[in-house]
Amino acid sequence: MTDPTIYAVIMAGGSGTRFWPASRRLRPKQLLPLGGPQPLLRETVDRVLPLCGKERIYIATGRHLAAPTRAVLPELAPQQLLIEPVARNTAPCIGWAAAVVARRDPDAVIMALPSDPHIRDEQRFREILKQACEAAAGGTITTIGIQPTRPETGYGYIEAVAGTGPVRQVARFVEKPDLPRAQAFVDSGRFFWNAGMFFFRAKDMLAAIDTHLPALAAALRKLDQAAAVGKETHIIDDVFDAMPAISIDHGIMEKITGIKMVVGDFGWSDLGSWLAVSDLAAALDGQGNHAPAGSVLVGSKRCHVFDHTDQTQKKLVALVGVEDLVVVDTDDALLIVHRDAAQRVREVVAALKARGEHEKV
Amino acid sequence: MTDPTIYAVIMAGGSGTRFWPASRRLRPKQLLPLGGPQPLLRETVDRVLPLCGKERIYIATGRHLAAPTRAVLPELAPQQLLIEPVARNTAPCIGWAAAVVARRDPDAVIMALPSDPHIRDEQRFREILKQACEAAAGGTITTIGIQPTRPETGYGYIEAVAGTGPVRQVARFVEKPDLPRAQAFVDSGRFFWNAGMFFFRAKDMLAAIDTHLPALAAALRKLDQAAAVGKETHIIDDVFDAMPAISIDHGIMEKITGIKMVVGDFGWSDLGSWLAVSDLAAALDGQGNHAPAGSVLVGSKRCHVFDHTDQTQKKLVALVGVEDLVVVDTDDALLIVHRDAAQRVREVVAALKARGEHEKV
Repeated sequence: MTDPTIYAVIMAGGSGTRFWPASRRLRPKQLLPLGGPQPLLRETVDRVLPLCGKERIYIATGRHLAAPTRAVLPELAPQQLLIEPVARNTAPCIGWAAAVVARRDPDAVIMALPSDPHIRDEQRFREILKQACEAAAGGTITTIGIQPTRPETGYGYIEAVAGTGPVRQVARFVEKPDLPRAQAFVDSGRFFWNAGMFFFRAKDMLAAIDTHLPALAAALRKLDQAAAVGKETHIIDDVFDAMPAISIDHGIMEKITGIKMVVGDFGWSDLGSWLAVSDLAAALDGQGNHAPAGSVLVGSKRCHVFDHTDQTQKKLVALVGVEDLVVVDTDDALLIVHRDAAQRVREVVAALKARGEHEKV
Repeated sequence: MTDPTIYAVIMAGGSGTRFWPASRRLRPKQLLPLGGPQPLLRETVDRVLPLCGKERIYIATGRHLAAPTRAVLPELAPQQLLIEPVARNTAPCIGWAAAVVARRDPDAVIMALPSDPHIRDEQRFREILKQACEAAAGGTITTIGIQPTRPETGYGYIEAVAGTGPVRQVARFVEKPDLPRAQAFVDSGRFFWNAGMFFFRAKDMLAAIDTHLPALAAALRKLDQAAAVGKETHIIDDVFDAMPAISIDHGIMEKITGIKMVVGDFGWSDLGSWLAVSDLAAALDGQGNHAPAGSVLVGSKRCHVFDHTDQTQKKLVALVGVEDLVVVDTDDALLIVHRDAAQRVREVVAALKARGEHEKV
């Protein structure tokens, strides 16, 4: 079997209000350097480049994010950005990408990947992606399951058919559970976190959409017809407007059988809040603190300071007698949040929106 | 008896490392607006102006502070600043001021006052000062005692002879006690906080210095002789260099008898740390928080945010799930300190000095 031709579709339309004040409407999570010195999207693209090459990467994002996304990925051609005029969740996004790729090569394998997780072991990540692509090349829609390390209620789960080895049969996709169910999932050993990574031949996904999402299939055919005469961009607004907003999980994955899952043992974090970002950052002292060079820490423990300002002359930060804080400084806002309250940062964004302070969100 | 001629000598040479990052070497505590919208020194001067008039105010400060002090008090003539070339504690400072006033009017009463306390009831403060000046006009060195409200170990105490009424005889001055002694002082009802305010005729202080600090007396005579020929500034460096560094409490007050004390019931705070400043600031919500307008507070309690930046476009501050913090933002440094650790802010200054970062202290 020859190696399949692989495309990557990076879904980069997210907003991420939990990373305020670093994240803003025009600078969402995937454009921030949360896992290292580069924006997450840049890291995601660099991570998959060895598998697909830069000619076969598509970035799906919202129209308002087109310019900042191009700024992060200047090497991509304009047509490699799939600009969604309105957000319609992942099924229309992946469907459109499948249609675009199918026009060139219906047998090509597409890796549909989120733009913003953190991957600790990039080498292992690519090995797992290759396994998933091989399974997809044989005609099986394939996903990745992350071994759960805690009863997380914020993720969807994938139940695997009992078995061992890196490639499993998927029994079912399960929505975000409550805590007792999540605990039971973790205890069972058969449930994995759904990391939102999907692998399929372009034609297989289009066939699944034909069967399970006929309205989306019809919309994609309209786009194909317009593209054939060079007019896809003329009708994209109307087509997206009329598309159903539905996730690939609900719309396709929960409805089809025979899906495979590769166990993703590459050190995955979805970076769901400042706490997760803080947990990634190596402590710089024996007290579990992490702060920019030059900071002064007196009697403080487990505090993380993130500088997201544009200033070249950085502000000196001093912490005295404080514990378990995450501090995020930007040019126009300062956040101080207790580690245990990291999820509540979105309440700040909600408050600012309610006040009409849109320039700060 | 006619009203005595009253001079004020405001001692404004302090540094105040506990107010970092707002306080710096060239912007010490008394030049900061810690108790209201105006710098403490400005408030202190305005508070006593009705008693002495602006012609009879002297400001004693260090040479490096001359320019910023003049900026705060532009209405004063240059000779109203007593510029100390080196700091020699309060006895040389008060002695020099007494000598300068005595050249004009040896019978004048001098109020020697610190530049940086907070006074809640200014009207009452002036009434008490008038009582003290009247006692001083009769030839008795007089001080003010503050009714203690806690066993504070950071202040000196004044023991009064048993009695009642606003004017008492001083039994003795006592240095900073340890906690059990401080508690015993508070319980006794006879001990008062020494607020460092002294009232005396110029000639009486000079006579006391003649008796108890002959080296200082000799130095002051040299200054008088030079001043008589317009050359005081020519020799001030050498004279101050040779002066003994000693406080007025140790050098004079502890050695003389017959001192009077007026009970200062005007709402006094020495503003010894950010905690004291925080306690003065009225809470803006039901959770005991105080923050600049526009701040967003989510699930936070007893937090105080002080903006000491020069920016007109203020940074938005958001606190999420935090308690008992004092936050001080300046243009080049940010401090986050737990209320209970306010005294440890000086450790930040010490660390910066040890690193050689003198521009930040």
